[in-house]
Amino acid sequence: MGKYCFGVDLGGTTVKIGLFSPKGEVLEKWEIPTRTENGGTNILPDIADAVQAKMKERGIAREEVIGVGIGVPGPVDDAGMVYRAVNVGWGVFNINETLGGLLGVPVKAGNDANVAALGEMWCGGAKGYKDIVLATLGTGIGGGIISNGKIVTGSRGAGGEIGHMHLVDDEPDACGCGNHGCFEQYGSASGIVRLAKRRLAVSKEDSVLRSAQEQDALSAKAVFDAVKEGDKVACEIAEEFGAYLGKGFAVIAAVVNPEVFVIGGGVSKAGEILFDYIAKNYEKYAFHACQNVTFKLATLGNDAGIYGAAKLVLE
Amino acid sequence: MGKYCFGVDLGGTTVKIGLFSPKGEVLEKWEIPTRTENGGTNILPDIADAVQAKMKERGIAREEVIGVGIGVPGPVDDAGMVYRAVNVGWGVFNINETLGGLLGVPVKAGNDANVAALGEMWCGGAKGYKDIVLATLGTGIGGGIISNGKIVTGSRGAGGEIGHMHLVDDEPDACGCGNHGCFEQYGSASGIVRLAKRRLAVSKEDSVLRSAQEQDALSAKAVFDAVKEGDKVACEIAEEFGAYLGKGFAVIAAVVNPEVFVIGGGVSKAGEILFDYIAKNYEKYAFHACQNVTFKLATLGNDAGIYGAAKLVLE
Repeated sequence: MGKYCFGVDLGGTTVKIGLFSPKGEVLEKWEIPTRTENGGTNILPDIADAVQAKMKERGIAREEVIGVGIGVPGPVDDAGMVYRAVNVGWGVFNINETLGGLLGVPVKAGNDANVAALGEMWCGGAKGYKDIVLATLGTGIGGGIISNGKIVTGSRGAGGEIGHMHLVDDEPDACGCGNHGCFEQYGSASGIVRLAKRRLAVSKEDSVLRSAQEQDALSAKAVFDAVKEGDKVACEIAEEFGAYLGKGFAVIAAVVNPEVFVIGGGVSKAGEILFDYIAKNYEKYAFHACQNVTFKLATLGNDAGIYGAAKLVLE
Repeated sequence: MGKYCFGVDLGGTTVKIGLFSPKGEVLEKWEIPTRTENGGTNILPDIADAVQAKMKERGIAREEVIGVGIGVPGPVDDAGMVYRAVNVGWGVFNINETLGGLLGVPVKAGNDANVAALGEMWCGGAKGYKDIVLATLGTGIGGGIISNGKIVTGSRGAGGEIGHMHLVDDEPDACGCGNHGCFEQYGSASGIVRLAKRRLAVSKEDSVLRSAQEQDALSAKAVFDAVKEGDKVACEIAEEFGAYLGKGFAVIAAVVNPEVFVIGGGVSKAGEILFDYIAKNYEKYAFHACQNVTFKLATLGNDAGIYGAAKLVLE
């Protein structure tokens, strides 16, 4: 068996690359720019060059490389078919074969959010678990689901697209996807800001969040910091936010029954105080057989993608 | 490799048993009663006796038996731990080890609804697919989810418990599970009867369903038969029923992105006309990457369990 594997996390601006041992030690990590021009045709050759240059620099023979895993910002199926990745200009093709052909080593690709979940399971907040849901609460909600240690890819790589799960009827605002009432309209970093603005607009109470709003500094962290200080409006916002997240997670649990929900993204900066608000609402809506669940914070941050990508080729 | 496998479907009244070839031919099937008295302690010895008697009768040696799969009416994890099966009186124990010990051949257990999904994938309505959701619309909604050919068991065997997914806020009636607003309160055979009664109570329109109601014969089939005759109230009920099912399936799709939804249970007797009502609502609520989905009728009926159980030991 080889001694090394590479994990690649392809983003719209940069490509993160990590060189790993099979035990999950990151031996080195670095970045190269993502050249999205010309339909992203330079991206895979750039990645191949970067990987091969590193192998040469460290004197790593091809036989010592178990493989190269890559997380892609778009749907990818289990055979490596990329269906569309608008952020990097890609259409439909098989990335496992294309990048594998350039490198001469096995390549395995996955959707970036799914791959991040695998990373958190391997070396992060969900270490030791095998049925997990990673919810990355940022601008939207990225999701990754692992069932019995394997990514739930879905038929077109759209497994774990929990941000676009319908949660609320009669929502007047459209989600980025065009639908109305998606989970990420409420449970994301943008969602809590939206809820906070709505609440501040109708409340007559004084609140430290009013000055935060004036300074354009409303965030999950600002809300939960204010909660810790006993701010009444902040507590109401936290309750509402927790109700949406708890309900959404309960719905997901009835489908895949995870042991642990791992929370990442900007919202996770609020810390474990989040869990109180989520858990009590989760318990209210979850099926009894799904009650036995743990909430954890993601721990790998922006490195979850390279960890999970490396793990892809170790399976 | 062995030439035979057994599939066992344990119900509260009878145990169905099938003898299969590894290709999915059912060579023989029969039933024995389920003796639930004394905490169900006779059930596994009865099953072992029935299997061994059949082996003796047919001159099948133990080495020729690949294994015995069994579907259990309750949560079972991937290691064979049964957490509770109230219909048969069982508490917590490892069924794989217990029945395997009695038989001297490998035993693999799963939850009955999940196992039925595997059966439909192997030899039924979902043959040829590998990412499927089986929704058995009967008294409740039983669910089974297959991701890349494998059952999504969940951490405590409650994967696919889609009947208890929260779907509707402010439902006054309680679900059998104690929560309010579960999917099965609307999308099951009982659900459509409930919707029909509510609609008939508020509607002033004439309808063939009024005499059906008087004869206690309201059902999904009665509603959709009336739809085919152009009955206005029946059409309204079908629309409402389809809206709940379409929305619920869209939610599930955002989590696991199946290729196909297979519909079984009493509601499926209404036939493919169901799909029109489900599909248009599914399209309204589903994320764009999950739109490419097929609806199929289950084809194995009450035999789905023995097929799926047999398939468990072939994996």
